[in-house]
Amino acid sequence: MSELAAQVAADLSLALHRAKFPVPVGVSVRHFHVTEADWRVLFGAAAPVKKRGLLQPGFWAAEETVTVEGPKGKISRVRLVAPYRTRTQVEVSRSDAQTLGIDAPVRGSGKLSGAAPVKITGPAGSVAVPDALIVAQRHVHFHPDDAARMKVKEGEMLRVRCGMGGPRETVFEGCLARVSDKFALEFHVDTDEANAAWLKNGDLSYLV
Amino acid sequence: MSELAAQVAADLSLALHRAKFPVPVGVSVRHFHVTEADWRVLFGAAAPVKKRGLLQPGFWAAEETVTVEGPKGKISRVRLVAPYRTRTQVEVSRSDAQTLGIDAPVRGSGKLSGAAPVKITGPAGSVAVPDALIVAQRHVHFHPDDAARMKVKEGEMLRVRCGMGGPRETVFEGCLARVSDKFALEFHVDTDEANAAWLKNGDLSYLV
Repeated sequence: MSELAAQVAADLSLALHRAKFPVPVGVSVRHFHVTEADWRVLFGAAAPVKKRGLLQPGFWAAEETVTVEGPKGKISRVRLVAPYRTRTQVEVSRSDAQTLGIDAPVRGSGKLSGAAPVKITGPAGSVAVPDALIVAQRHVHFHPDDAARMKVKEGEMLRVRCGMGGPRETVFEGCLARVSDKFALEFHVDTDEANAAWLKNGDLSYLV
Repeated sequence: MSELAAQVAADLSLALHRAKFPVPVGVSVRHFHVTEADWRVLFGAAAPVKKRGLLQPGFWAAEETVTVEGPKGKISRVRLVAPYRTRTQVEVSRSDAQTLGIDAPVRGSGKLSGAAPVKITGPAGSVAVPDALIVAQRHVHFHPDDAARMKVKEGEMLRVRCGMGGPRETVFEGCLARVSDKFALEFHVDTDEANAAWLKNGDLSYLV
């Protein structure tokens, strides 16, 4: 076989292998993460109260919400995802960013270089954070066992097919592979991406 | 060549041919079309006033806007796209439909079977239309000259790649081909789809 034919055969073989492992979709609705210091300003002294656990181990949605504000508008009831972080971070869809009138960049969680400024208001006070607002980069969480089984490496850029059988089947390029023993297998998209492909939580997607 | 190999070669040849013709993206923001009777109820006797022409010949955005309302919320400043139609139709993104609290189906323009009920309010009055709210099916407009050049037929379902070079390259399946001598070459997506692929008006997309 020529080198090209060998590469095509290897790619096809890998794609067929990965296609045996469906990945559940998780739709991330707008939310925020907070430092303990910003928490105190926004909510006073008490600690966040757990509302429900998330599929990713150790993460949970809190009862507490804030209002997020930009030059063109506000969005209320933006929920806290705990536990505390070392940086305060607000994750919205680009539709949300347009409502706020803020030009927010696509970033992986915690990668706040170039993140947009935003004002956050809670029941006890407000913080204006200079670099907190991002649109999340779509990504797939893998436990190391899943990654080994599916032959995926941390940091790899994946192509994910989703919405099969619905009115808006879509192939998303540029989906970041995140591998950690703290993760469960899940493809995270935001609400714009979920709506563009007509997805809901728990729908199945496939690496291609 | 085997039959399968011949089909693969033909598909590849067609894809390579079509890839020579970039298709500009048009992002459809929420808007509505109106019957002359509903226009009178919403705005009184005067006729719509042109704000600006659209790329599709004969269509124009009017100065007039309405508020659209569902059980969970309202969206104001929803713009009229003229001229009058035989059916009143409101086109929103699924994000918008969720804001309104309405389960709107994906439909081609004018295909209002199963469309959702919605209340529309203008400066002179309101109408409650039982079957008006849809999420637009993504589609490509072709002039017959474009269709012939690109070897596309009316009603064909196309696959369109877009967002190349941006942070969210995406391949949209199930894009309906619409061919008419009243059309100009353009790939119409809604704001959810534009944001999922990080697109703006005039970006280039490619049939694949």
